[in-house]
Amino acid sequence: MSYTKVAAIYADSEALSGKEVQVGGWVRTIRDMKTFGFIELNDGSCFRNLQVVFADGEVANYKEIAGQNVGAALVVTGTVVLTPEAKQPLELRASSVRVEGTSSPEYPLQKKRHSVEYLRTIQHLRPRTNLFSAVFRVRSAAAYAIHEFFQERGFVYIHTPIITASDCEGAGEMFRVTTLDLENLPRTGDGAVDYGEDFFGKSANLTVSGQLNAENFAMAFGDVYTFGPTFRAENSNTQRHAAEFWMIEPEMAFTDLKGDMDVAEAMIKHIIRRVMERCPDDMNFFNSFVDKGLIERLSHVASSDFARVSYTEAVDLLKQHNDKFDYKVEWGCDLQTEHERYLTEQIYKKPVFVTDYPKEIKAFYMRLNEDGKTVAASDCLVPGIGEIIGGSQREERLDVLERRIRELGMKPEDYWWYLDLRRYGSCTHAGFGLGFERMVMYLTGVSNIRDVLPHPRTVGNAEF
Amino acid sequence: MSYTKVAAIYADSEALSGKEVQVGGWVRTIRDMKTFGFIELNDGSCFRNLQVVFADGEVANYKEIAGQNVGAALVVTGTVVLTPEAKQPLELRASSVRVEGTSSPEYPLQKKRHSVEYLRTIQHLRPRTNLFSAVFRVRSAAAYAIHEFFQERGFVYIHTPIITASDCEGAGEMFRVTTLDLENLPRTGDGAVDYGEDFFGKSANLTVSGQLNAENFAMAFGDVYTFGPTFRAENSNTQRHAAEFWMIEPEMAFTDLKGDMDVAEAMIKHIIRRVMERCPDDMNFFNSFVDKGLIERLSHVASSDFARVSYTEAVDLLKQHNDKFDYKVEWGCDLQTEHERYLTEQIYKKPVFVTDYPKEIKAFYMRLNEDGKTVAASDCLVPGIGEIIGGSQREERLDVLERRIRELGMKPEDYWWYLDLRRYGSCTHAGFGLGFERMVMYLTGVSNIRDVLPHPRTVGNAEF
Repeated sequence: MSYTKVAAIYADSEALSGKEVQVGGWVRTIRDMKTFGFIELNDGSCFRNLQVVFADGEVANYKEIAGQNVGAALVVTGTVVLTPEAKQPLELRASSVRVEGTSSPEYPLQKKRHSVEYLRTIQHLRPRTNLFSAVFRVRSAAAYAIHEFFQERGFVYIHTPIITASDCEGAGEMFRVTTLDLENLPRTGDGAVDYGEDFFGKSANLTVSGQLNAENFAMAFGDVYTFGPTFRAENSNTQRHAAEFWMIEPEMAFTDLKGDMDVAEAMIKHIIRRVMERCPDDMNFFNSFVDKGLIERLSHVASSDFARVSYTEAVDLLKQHNDKFDYKVEWGCDLQTEHERYLTEQIYKKPVFVTDYPKEIKAFYMRLNEDGKTVAASDCLVPGIGEIIGGSQREERLDVLERRIRELGMKPEDYWWYLDLRRYGSCTHAGFGLGFERMVMYLTGVSNIRDVLPHPRTVGNAEF
Repeated sequence: MSYTKVAAIYADSEALSGKEVQVGGWVRTIRDMKTFGFIELNDGSCFRNLQVVFADGEVANYKEIAGQNVGAALVVTGTVVLTPEAKQPLELRASSVRVEGTSSPEYPLQKKRHSVEYLRTIQHLRPRTNLFSAVFRVRSAAAYAIHEFFQERGFVYIHTPIITASDCEGAGEMFRVTTLDLENLPRTGDGAVDYGEDFFGKSANLTVSGQLNAENFAMAFGDVYTFGPTFRAENSNTQRHAAEFWMIEPEMAFTDLKGDMDVAEAMIKHIIRRVMERCPDDMNFFNSFVDKGLIERLSHVASSDFARVSYTEAVDLLKQHNDKFDYKVEWGCDLQTEHERYLTEQIYKKPVFVTDYPKEIKAFYMRLNEDGKTVAASDCLVPGIGEIIGGSQREERLDVLERRIRELGMKPEDYWWYLDLRRYGSCTHAGFGLGFERMVMYLTGVSNIRDVLPHPRTVGNAEF
């Protein structure tokens, strides 16, 4: 007899009514009423528990079962009974219960509310709580929705490299990747570390973005996307930054900034709709216990147009509220999270694309506008988070791009292959990057990035 | 007017016949017949080119277009004309052609056959060739098929960490991840490198497997899978090894070794079927130009049962052919690629699972069988590749696992959280790892792993 998932029992309850099934799962609560008992069993297939009723005389080992602790793994064989009058729609009346693995009174997840800070110290067990089981189920559904969105539109999924010898952003703080023996470093004639002896024959790092590589493939496939881990060695300890996080980076040939924003907006709406369809119980939990109003807000976002405003207009709007900000806004400044959130939360009350930023605060590969001062960039800001997407039309003109690289003190020869794309069949193209964890935070209302990553990596933390 | 993809024109040719469309793509070939010309235009949306006919008098800039080089990016507006008598089913009769980006006679991809070795030196351009466009389209379709397979079965996708402070296999050669300044290393009192000063406050590496972390989540969700990059710092220069590659690692609670093999077999069949359905032109190309008989072989695999044989039986079978092997087979030895391939190609002529290997040649976490000598492991071998999947039932008994860890000279305290899974609600569970690049090699017939990775990383190579 094979196992039936709790999700399948709820989904097919009418068909399974009166039928015998076998379920494997873990005890969330157990109550011994002397001659019969109740178990709330969770198998992780859905948010909901399955109520198991076991009675002395019906199961052979009543005492053994009644004595189990929270966290024990059980295999229950029994009959599905619909209970339309009860709180829960059905229960499983056990004919046999087998203990697969016991637990103990020291089990760290007793039936009480634990702080998220404490739960971060037991990351191997926290997925067994309501909060984290919902978070990681939504994370998985969101990831699949993203693949679905792009694949259905003919985008080719590209695994851009994780280890890289170039620094895409020309700036980011990067992790070094090495096989050199640090206790015995090879040296060149002049005493410097000899990276020629390293694994790749040169200095190598963890990628901060797959974009430049993705452009190689957009110039062959038209529409491509990446979905992979990226890294920042920033010594910052905020709720929104992790050293290792996942990014989605679509890149589209024959597409301008408007087309880029259209795809970004459609993608966010698709993710929201799919997650609400596929994880209703998880979303209701977040709506009730984490962020009241979440579902209404997401529904509103999924069905309304995002605002679009130029950086110059946004600065004019924000300057009127400079008394509210720690950092005063003026043209030329980089928008801080406080400004981004004010714009999306207070002024527009919905997601907003801010476009055409001053070139000085944006990356070298963004397309220079006709005004010579701004670039065709576009950041998408959402309530509660701030920036969730950064995108731009890419500079497709060889001469302009080379000039920009030199202006920034970088060497064109380091970008020979990226420049080649502008030598052979260059075209209008654009792309963006979605920070996946920020999207999951937006979907769940969870406010700390450490609580949406399976095992977060931050300054001083690489446990588990 | 928005752009229409070439794939959409072929898919909807009846409906689009006589209609005007606009296409953006790159010149694969161009022929100037003086008063009219032909362009084979490719936009990467499918394997096939679109034949564009442009005539003097019909397009305003005939001379400019006729003078374009292979590789140029064009935007063509024209009418779809069905051509049932011609080689190709339709063509686009141009009313206007705009040059988005020129190419030059120095364009490295001229119309001739290039060696894969040469193409590896221009990885930014090789996706524009027939071979590599097919490879990466199939790679993308295979990746999506994998997500589809697991998501449709309720598996939760887990992003296990890339940076880790533990070594899962207890053996692998790993890459160090560090932000220490190698020219100026911090030292402890006794002169050793002080990793307490490193980013994570300890020594950290790139993961070789997400399995141990995945088990944390299987013990909460039942069925989970990972799909992410993994790393080996092996100084080996073979056709089958890369320093950075992608793995899929499902992990299933309440599942034994048989269930594990059932899922692995169903997954491989699902991938084959979906890729053959979704990439028929690409697969025909491989079948004709890379590996004759590929489609017949894959179709056979998708519709027949995989063989299953114990290691002990396999060794008995192989010993009868020891005269053919460089390394002679005997019980206790690790199977070499020559043995694996002989078994799957010569003896079974289809994929085969080899089970129950000697514990000495397998990892510590594999479940010890009743005989005390073998473990409940299972490798899946396929023709042309050898091992494509390695899996096992995991040791769920705390005492047995602790003993095994000590036997191997490892410290139980380094595995405290992994052992906790056996303290609180342990259960029968199993999982496997699929090497994604090996799967793509198997699907395409491409024999070198460097040619199925977008930008391969191997000893001495981290270009692009």
